[in-house]
Amino acid sequence: MIHPTTHPESPESPKSPGGAGGAERTLVAELAERIGRRVTVAGWVQTLRLQSTMQFVLVRDHTGVVQVTHRKGADELTALLEGLTTESAVRITGRVVANPVVKLGGLELLPESVELLNRAAGPLPIDEHSGPEPRLDWRFLDLRRRPAARLVFAVQSTFEQGMREYAYGAGCTELHTPKLMGTASESGAEVFRLDYFGGSAYLAQSPQFYKQMAIAGGIDRVFEIGPVFRAEPSYTSRHATEFTGVDVELGWIEDVEQVQRFEEEMIAHALALVAERHGEQIREQYGVEVRVPSTPFPRVTMEQAQQLLRGELGWDPEGAKVDLDPEGERALSAHILRETGHEFVFVTHYPASIRPFYHARPAGRPDLTLSFDLLWNGLEVTTGAQREHRYEVLVEQAAEKGMDTAPLTDYLNCFRFGCPPHGGFGMGLGRMLMALLGLGSLREAVFLFRGPNRLTP
Amino acid sequence: MIHPTTHPESPESPKSPGGAGGAERTLVAELAERIGRRVTVAGWVQTLRLQSTMQFVLVRDHTGVVQVTHRKGADELTALLEGLTTESAVRITGRVVANPVVKLGGLELLPESVELLNRAAGPLPIDEHSGPEPRLDWRFLDLRRRPAARLVFAVQSTFEQGMREYAYGAGCTELHTPKLMGTASESGAEVFRLDYFGGSAYLAQSPQFYKQMAIAGGIDRVFEIGPVFRAEPSYTSRHATEFTGVDVELGWIEDVEQVQRFEEEMIAHALALVAERHGEQIREQYGVEVRVPSTPFPRVTMEQAQQLLRGELGWDPEGAKVDLDPEGERALSAHILRETGHEFVFVTHYPASIRPFYHARPAGRPDLTLSFDLLWNGLEVTTGAQREHRYEVLVEQAAEKGMDTAPLTDYLNCFRFGCPPHGGFGMGLGRMLMALLGLGSLREAVFLFRGPNRLTP
Repeated sequence: MIHPTTHPESPESPKSPGGAGGAERTLVAELAERIGRRVTVAGWVQTLRLQSTMQFVLVRDHTGVVQVTHRKGADELTALLEGLTTESAVRITGRVVANPVVKLGGLELLPESVELLNRAAGPLPIDEHSGPEPRLDWRFLDLRRRPAARLVFAVQSTFEQGMREYAYGAGCTELHTPKLMGTASESGAEVFRLDYFGGSAYLAQSPQFYKQMAIAGGIDRVFEIGPVFRAEPSYTSRHATEFTGVDVELGWIEDVEQVQRFEEEMIAHALALVAERHGEQIREQYGVEVRVPSTPFPRVTMEQAQQLLRGELGWDPEGAKVDLDPEGERALSAHILRETGHEFVFVTHYPASIRPFYHARPAGRPDLTLSFDLLWNGLEVTTGAQREHRYEVLVEQAAEKGMDTAPLTDYLNCFRFGCPPHGGFGMGLGRMLMALLGLGSLREAVFLFRGPNRLTP
Repeated sequence: MIHPTTHPESPESPKSPGGAGGAERTLVAELAERIGRRVTVAGWVQTLRLQSTMQFVLVRDHTGVVQVTHRKGADELTALLEGLTTESAVRITGRVVANPVVKLGGLELLPESVELLNRAAGPLPIDEHSGPEPRLDWRFLDLRRRPAARLVFAVQSTFEQGMREYAYGAGCTELHTPKLMGTASESGAEVFRLDYFGGSAYLAQSPQFYKQMAIAGGIDRVFEIGPVFRAEPSYTSRHATEFTGVDVELGWIEDVEQVQRFEEEMIAHALALVAERHGEQIREQYGVEVRVPSTPFPRVTMEQAQQLLRGELGWDPEGAKVDLDPEGERALSAHILRETGHEFVFVTHYPASIRPFYHARPAGRPDLTLSFDLLWNGLEVTTGAQREHRYEVLVEQAAEKGMDTAPLTDYLNCFRFGCPPHGGFGMGLGRMLMALLGLGSLREAVFLFRGPNRLTP
């Protein structure tokens, strides 16, 4: 009784999810290789053209669309097709035939049996004229009906895979740090508070402190890809209250350059994989050419960037801005692209006044930090730095920022018992996809967007 | 100015994090290949033996421990070594020499220069006699000093890599679903509430609803590895308020068997990778032999399991229990191991009364579900099921459970417009590591444990 039946299909090729009982599923993209054969296709009714003598049903799966063609008769099939609705889920068995007249790949499916798996109600709540908010409300329908919208996640998957490949190869351990924190330590202002068994907990704004703990814990190099939370009431196209962060931290570094080298090589490696797998689809769907960047990326110091922006590019004529704003970032990026042909640029040596207390500072320059941002096509996609690893200096820098060190006790303790030099960076995954695909908003770059006004679906 | 200097070391071999300025770091594990050569080692002072004529310093990095041997003199080096403290971070350059008397690999390092990177304060807050709670309080020190504790994360990294490899190969897209939800939909009782811009949000107990939305959204197969949150006041060795879930959902399935086949093949693939890379270390550190399971795993129905447990195994003599308790799970697992030699067993067809409303039910058996748990070495590590994909049936099942469907609106809407049959499972990553390494508590299987009484460090 405890011995199961053997598998009728090889578990080594789980691409076709045909189960034990049914016929093996053929994906629409595979039909061209099956002309003249009987296949089973499973997908959604994209379009119904029910004419007086002919019935045409366009069926979509995640790989494409096929025309199902049936001559009307007194048969059961005719009645079944007549009763279909747009977006119903169907499984259709029939013969694949070549037909040069058919636009969808010059082939069609002549149905022998149709199984209505789930009938869609009508009318559909959104259509191709719907605005962005209704599309977000009905995100699943919008994704299902727009291959370009779904492509984002195939690309994201590959991009992550490429980054992980690089990180593993470079000796990193993948980590899962807590999102629940006992104190609002990093910066109280933008932290979500939650009820926690009669007390309070806080949601981590980043794995920053925890990944540094891992380095202090003797895990040589770490990375994490996971959610981060920001209680910022920001309503821009590039902010969210929850997004996916890619965090890396490297122990025993000699300088911050090492961190930048790691990042540029990781990105180049991942983009090569994206270009190889999705380059053609990205061109078709977004009109964008994926360019695998050469390394090293260009680097400018913040001081150089500001000189350049104020001098040649007419930015901030009042000379009031300490940090780059989105306009400055776009202007700088565009300049670098013109001068070097490079879509990426590291801006380094940010003033200490606009960086967190834990960024290390160059010897003799307490006004600067050993930090960087990475811009890609005008968008800030990363912040990184060497961390201050000496307890006394760290405490001094926190005091200088006027921080209360009591909630920082666990963090600061990591530096009292021999924490080595280290550094790392945090990257916004959605922003990377925006920059890569030229998306106008983070809303299109994430599966289900979360903002101050949006917690659904 | 925007052209950086070229790299002095190949970015293709970033294993040795020696920076631009310093000597390349040699890992302790690599020293045996460098006998007679000058190297730079970076690590922590594990032990100091400062004798009248000789100074012995054991230095540990993440790959091993090496003895540094210096004959005392009037030199600067002698003074520097004399001033070291346990757990200080040091960088030492010297010559590797063979010395059969030395226990640590029959070699030692004769130092030429020592750099004190960060001096550790003393005394250390924990030692080898410290109990579990102080160890958790000082987790970073405990990890740094115990290779067995760190091995957990190397194994976890490899295990995840193996699972991802399988999932990608099987056509899955990696997904990041929101952890912030607008309603406490899945089950109100065990959900954390947080302040959200003057209102409330809730933390996702699992990606369950969202991964189903992805299937309805035409993403054929999805997986996610990310945090899940449970507001349960459970104080057992296998519960946490936050843990890492591995979630898979497969669209267009024919039956729940397909989901089980996916899971067993994924686990077998991942364990083969773990055995290959870490089998020897796991044997050394935990005395455990990693066994790559054969597939298919044994399967018993819940009814069969209960008969077996009550009949042969003396479980629940009162006959009162509908679900298996941990004792029953251990007894069943032990029985299967004796009978089949298999560490895994699927328990299937759970009663509908103890399963969520969205589990599908077999035709004609509304009292059962098409669901399963997976037990590994007596521990429940997974729950899975085919999902009910028909809107009317789903609403009926929710009503039968007495659920308020208003907060479920967005979820239920996914089923109104042609949602295909689908199924999936959720696995606790920490529990997998417990079962694999024979750990006594989830606290040892996660980087930083979170429970009702623990939100730090």
